[in-house]
Amino acid sequence: MNDTSKIERTVYLVSDGTGITVETFSNAVLSQFDKAYFQQIHLPFIDSIEKAQKSVIIINKNALETGYPPIIFSTLVNQEIMTLLKNSNCIFLDLFGTFVNHIEKAIGQKSNNSIGRSHMVSDSEKYRNRIDAINFCLAHDDGQFVNQLDKADVILIGISRCGKTPTSLYLAMQYAIKAANFPLTPDDFERNMLPSTIVPYKDKLFGLSIHPERLSEVRNERRPNSKYATIEQCRYEVMASEKMMRREGISWLSTTTKSIEEISTTVLQEIGLSRTLA
Amino acid sequence: MNDTSKIERTVYLVSDGTGITVETFSNAVLSQFDKAYFQQIHLPFIDSIEKAQKSVIIINKNALETGYPPIIFSTLVNQEIMTLLKNSNCIFLDLFGTFVNHIEKAIGQKSNNSIGRSHMVSDSEKYRNRIDAINFCLAHDDGQFVNQLDKADVILIGISRCGKTPTSLYLAMQYAIKAANFPLTPDDFERNMLPSTIVPYKDKLFGLSIHPERLSEVRNERRPNSKYATIEQCRYEVMASEKMMRREGISWLSTTTKSIEEISTTVLQEIGLSRTLA
Repeated sequence: MNDTSKIERTVYLVSDGTGITVETFSNAVLSQFDKAYFQQIHLPFIDSIEKAQKSVIIINKNALETGYPPIIFSTLVNQEIMTLLKNSNCIFLDLFGTFVNHIEKAIGQKSNNSIGRSHMVSDSEKYRNRIDAINFCLAHDDGQFVNQLDKADVILIGISRCGKTPTSLYLAMQYAIKAANFPLTPDDFERNMLPSTIVPYKDKLFGLSIHPERLSEVRNERRPNSKYATIEQCRYEVMASEKMMRREGISWLSTTTKSIEEISTTVLQEIGLSRTLA
Repeated sequence: MNDTSKIERTVYLVSDGTGITVETFSNAVLSQFDKAYFQQIHLPFIDSIEKAQKSVIIINKNALETGYPPIIFSTLVNQEIMTLLKNSNCIFLDLFGTFVNHIEKAIGQKSNNSIGRSHMVSDSEKYRNRIDAINFCLAHDDGQFVNQLDKADVILIGISRCGKTPTSLYLAMQYAIKAANFPLTPDDFERNMLPSTIVPYKDKLFGLSIHPERLSEVRNERRPNSKYATIEQCRYEVMASEKMMRREGISWLSTTTKSIEEISTTVLQEIGLSRTLA
């Protein structure tokens, strides 16, 4: 690293909507650099000339104070607003412009220049499906409610604290997928049978597992010094559940080093569910 | 619309990781066009030459069958893999390349060309905070659990079915924000006082409201033909809750036409919570 690496650069995330697209993109691009080097500041809902002018004041002030023009990641669409921002003391990166032009050329059609569409309730049926999926997921968390499992898109199974709940919620929230989850317990392993409740839905089952050491850590946070959290108990449950899933021919993965996003992406691929942002 | 508008174009979303960044970006860019025109196909986890070669076969087959080169949105980083895909029969849009170059120039540093970083568990403390926030949110849904409200980052309040639960979950999932939520009920309106449980945390409260007609629809889906769902009851509760929030000086917004993302973005701005993707 050279000297400039010690200087922090400000990155403004400017959007006419929620700024979630620009935030996701900026996070991905900046992860190609030393992230500690950047300070990201959000300027969402910049949908008027007045708000744009206020933003320009903030940006120019930052340039003066830091001695460097800040970087702007923009998903603005309105040309007038964009021009104002571009003329501030900054390095302006227009995330949409280049690609919209390429697509216009490719398909021989003009874009409609509409602002902030991607996280708005433009399609209320789609939006209702998403809320329904979240409610379904909450009602069917941890096998609480076993009616309507036939309506589930997927049923995640696995031992306590292997990651079923966060994954189900993510699937519901991002993709409007009705994800139920159902625990595998020591009782099931003694009987050496899948819980009878979920047997009729075998084609919807997907298993999660986890490394015993990691599981013991997680369980110890929840119930310190319990038998439930001992490494012996964790080893037994992990081994028994993986054996059961293998025997029953149920696809499964280990969540130990995976994020909710990685687990969800794999579940969708394996179950063959279509993936459309909700 | 001209003739070409009837032809569907395939868009491949190619990534070496989960593909969530490319999916978010593609959704935003394509919303500038008639979306029905595009079919989006996900090719996540393309992290080897072998997987790249398989993708090229799929893409070339599509070009032949449709008579148009498909559009590729790529967040690939590995040059060898990218070159393979670029040489397929496609219109290749490299989402990172342009911007990474601009940033390298601006800060005088090279990128590290690391793949799939943004949705991996690279920082396990951060990841644990996120899971903790989700668990906190579930435990503190609908005022179920009133201990540890002092640990909440925000407490969403409002009448039944105004959108508290999905918003809380989104805040926890995306930003690792400990979001509790607490109902305002007809009992509270009769007493004409905020629930005593939440009074000590007034600086953390944020209110949600909703249009009575919309509320009545939502409640009717849940409990058809109940008093709870009547338009009169809904009008009364909406009016009483908004009056209470105004009197108590609690910031609030109407969720009627807003998405979870829009509500969450506004809550974060108003409460002054920092917003960092979890």
